[in-house]
Amino acid sequence: MAEAVRHDKTARQLRLLSDALDSGRLGPVRRLINTLAPAEIGNLLESLPPDRRMVVWGLVDAEDDGEVLVHVGDEVRESLIADMDPDELVAAVEDLDIDDLADLVEDLPEAVTGQILQSMDRENRERLEQALSYEEDTAGRLMNPDVVTVRADTTVDVVLRFLRLRGELPENTDHLYVVNRRHQLLGWVALQKLVTSEPGVPINKLIDDELTAIHAAESAESVARQFSDHDWVSAPVVDEGNVLLGRITIDDVVDIIREQAEHQALGAAGLDEDEDLFSPVKRAVRGRIVWLGVNLATAFLAAAVIGRFEATIEKIVALAVLMPIVAGIGGNAGMQVLTLMVRGLALGQVGASNAGVLLWKEVRVALINGLLIGGFVGLVAFAWFQDWLLGVVITAALVINFSCAALAGVLVPLAMKRADVDPAVAGGVVVTAVTDVVGFFSFLGLATVILLR
Amino acid sequence: MAEAVRHDKTARQLRLLSDALDSGRLGPVRRLINTLAPAEIGNLLESLPPDRRMVVWGLVDAEDDGEVLVHVGDEVRESLIADMDPDELVAAVEDLDIDDLADLVEDLPEAVTGQILQSMDRENRERLEQALSYEEDTAGRLMNPDVVTVRADTTVDVVLRFLRLRGELPENTDHLYVVNRRHQLLGWVALQKLVTSEPGVPINKLIDDELTAIHAAESAESVARQFSDHDWVSAPVVDEGNVLLGRITIDDVVDIIREQAEHQALGAAGLDEDEDLFSPVKRAVRGRIVWLGVNLATAFLAAAVIGRFEATIEKIVALAVLMPIVAGIGGNAGMQVLTLMVRGLALGQVGASNAGVLLWKEVRVALINGLLIGGFVGLVAFAWFQDWLLGVVITAALVINFSCAALAGVLVPLAMKRADVDPAVAGGVVVTAVTDVVGFFSFLGLATVILLR
Repeated sequence: MAEAVRHDKTARQLRLLSDALDSGRLGPVRRLINTLAPAEIGNLLESLPPDRRMVVWGLVDAEDDGEVLVHVGDEVRESLIADMDPDELVAAVEDLDIDDLADLVEDLPEAVTGQILQSMDRENRERLEQALSYEEDTAGRLMNPDVVTVRADTTVDVVLRFLRLRGELPENTDHLYVVNRRHQLLGWVALQKLVTSEPGVPINKLIDDELTAIHAAESAESVARQFSDHDWVSAPVVDEGNVLLGRITIDDVVDIIREQAEHQALGAAGLDEDEDLFSPVKRAVRGRIVWLGVNLATAFLAAAVIGRFEATIEKIVALAVLMPIVAGIGGNAGMQVLTLMVRGLALGQVGASNAGVLLWKEVRVALINGLLIGGFVGLVAFAWFQDWLLGVVITAALVINFSCAALAGVLVPLAMKRADVDPAVAGGVVVTAVTDVVGFFSFLGLATVILLR
Repeated sequence: MAEAVRHDKTARQLRLLSDALDSGRLGPVRRLINTLAPAEIGNLLESLPPDRRMVVWGLVDAEDDGEVLVHVGDEVRESLIADMDPDELVAAVEDLDIDDLADLVEDLPEAVTGQILQSMDRENRERLEQALSYEEDTAGRLMNPDVVTVRADTTVDVVLRFLRLRGELPENTDHLYVVNRRHQLLGWVALQKLVTSEPGVPINKLIDDELTAIHAAESAESVARQFSDHDWVSAPVVDEGNVLLGRITIDDVVDIIREQAEHQALGAAGLDEDEDLFSPVKRAVRGRIVWLGVNLATAFLAAAVIGRFEATIEKIVALAVLMPIVAGIGGNAGMQVLTLMVRGLALGQVGASNAGVLLWKEVRVALINGLLIGGFVGLVAFAWFQDWLLGVVITAALVINFSCAALAGVLVPLAMKRADVDPAVAGGVVVTAVTDVVGFFSFLGLATVILLR
């Protein structure tokens, strides 16, 4: 493997770490991991089998423990938390930012949560409670209440003096927020403007109010889209009364985008994106069998269709040989259409206004591909079984199945979106069920009518 | 569709736009689109069928044209460029940032490129040539040469005066870079530190040199990973001699992450991530048929396996009815393992050091799932065809196929990674080819041996 992964930092770290663990000397292991960022440590822990993972977890600097917990998937997080006693846990998480704490708190044992709430001052406790009052995957949960605010009726000079007194700013601060006495958001001033303006310039001349603030109830998905459409680094979050609650920074948005992509990729195979690479066998079996069961149901449906044509197959065994081709390629064609539609829906590019045009385009593509692929398969079938009518039957069946694949590929995800089902996760099963059933039925049905006359 | 997408801004814009276009009055259309960010306009253009797309494209403010071109997929970009005359094109792109221009330049007609190079001053021309000297998808291509540098032997006060003289800073500037006389990178100073430090503090006290700079030849993927591991907003890019060439900002990284995710999702269905939702039928046919052809080859392979058992199927037609179940569910199980592996490889979490442990885990999961699913299918087969030996045969075949699915799911992507083939794109075909062949062969083979004794 060494050459293939030489450009990959994590893989290299993993190899170094494995070698160090193999040698049994933990000093070098500890030194190695504590040069890494918490996200990198999290990634490494996820790549280790359970026994080694626990050894390494014990060697992570206590001050990084909290950040590492934030950066691992739910299943791995659970196993790490199970390995810590309550005091360690409290120490690890009590200094986290409120948004990270809100993310973790539901995975913590109740006793620990109580202890943490007690150790917090009133302001932070209220902030945490406020964050938790919003649903998961909303702006209210993602935001960090730690913001720097200024008044409009002051000058650059005064603000700079205030900042010097204040000292360190929250991470990724690129704007100061301008609020009124009721803490309502009036606009923001970029640090860039602050450092390029003369000391005497009044702040209200530097205020930018062109951007729109994010509402605390907005979905994480919509937040991510706005950040990438507008190239924001941070954005303020307000409640319905335009009161400034906090801000969201791009690093959290990057995590959201990564998670969404993983959810889609793993969801399409019926997997949970939080599945641990090394989850216990029992858990992995449970996690996967539901999905296999759903697919089994559609496989039985297809088998039932074939079962109706037993008499036909008995007479022409060639049908049994060729029928998986019709179903399989139809499925591939359907998945292509579905994949395009899923992307289009995720980007908001497909709606009632253009679905018709799209459907018509896809049906034409399917007819042409069906004729091309079907024609070729027909010729092969003729050459193989010396029966030109069999060739005609399989060509016709493929054209029919490609057309149905296009219809299903366009209409199934639209219907799912309407019913609030994620087409990225559930679309594939339904579309291949359609192409299996239509494939077997049209091929065996046409064969019965035409070849057994 | 109206209710289902009510939270989705793009879909709402699309509907408004379609209504306005339907009404035929272009004034409201123009007003609507020119309130949008270029990325949003790009997204809208991608959602419109070709005729409407060209109408709207004609209404976009000329000054946004260049940015919009940067934000659409290759195929749509081509159609928009084809609609512009050379002068319009030159005007649209000449004010773009160097990194955006480098991204566009290869899609422009040669005449236009020449004109743009002529219209540029020497410094910018050299910068563009430098960017183009790096391969696509490397840091050298992504970087923007527009950076603010300062010297170490100065003070906060002097730097602030310099910045006030300079005026506006490049977008998303969060650091100033400290260089020596040979423009080698010594470190960087955060704007945050600048605004919180006393005027007399020397710059060399504020320098942060803990981060590592990005090398111009590094891959976009590695850049994206470092940004998300370290929560960076921007990072400096240097050459082999540590000379500062430019910087990469998080907004470009967000685009990379989105593109990678699209590449994976669409690649798995044999689609190009730049495929236009409304690409001309001829082009769509061409784009998809190669992939269908590859899948067809594997389908013929499976058919050939079945063909070897024609005599067996002739005697026991039930086999034809049940055989797609063995192949299909085996394929689903294999895709689950493959999907986990593809993610693990993308994150650098899988390598020689843990592949063995993973394989052993997946084989155990496969044996258990094979026995559970296989046992159930065996019972159904017995109930359906009243033949207990048939039930035993299909159970055994499923256990065998699940095991091979696990082996293929783990080993195929590892081998592909080693051979520098993207397992996210090519893994699925190979794994399902294995599960098809093994599924049909084990089921029909066992049936021949056991049932036809």
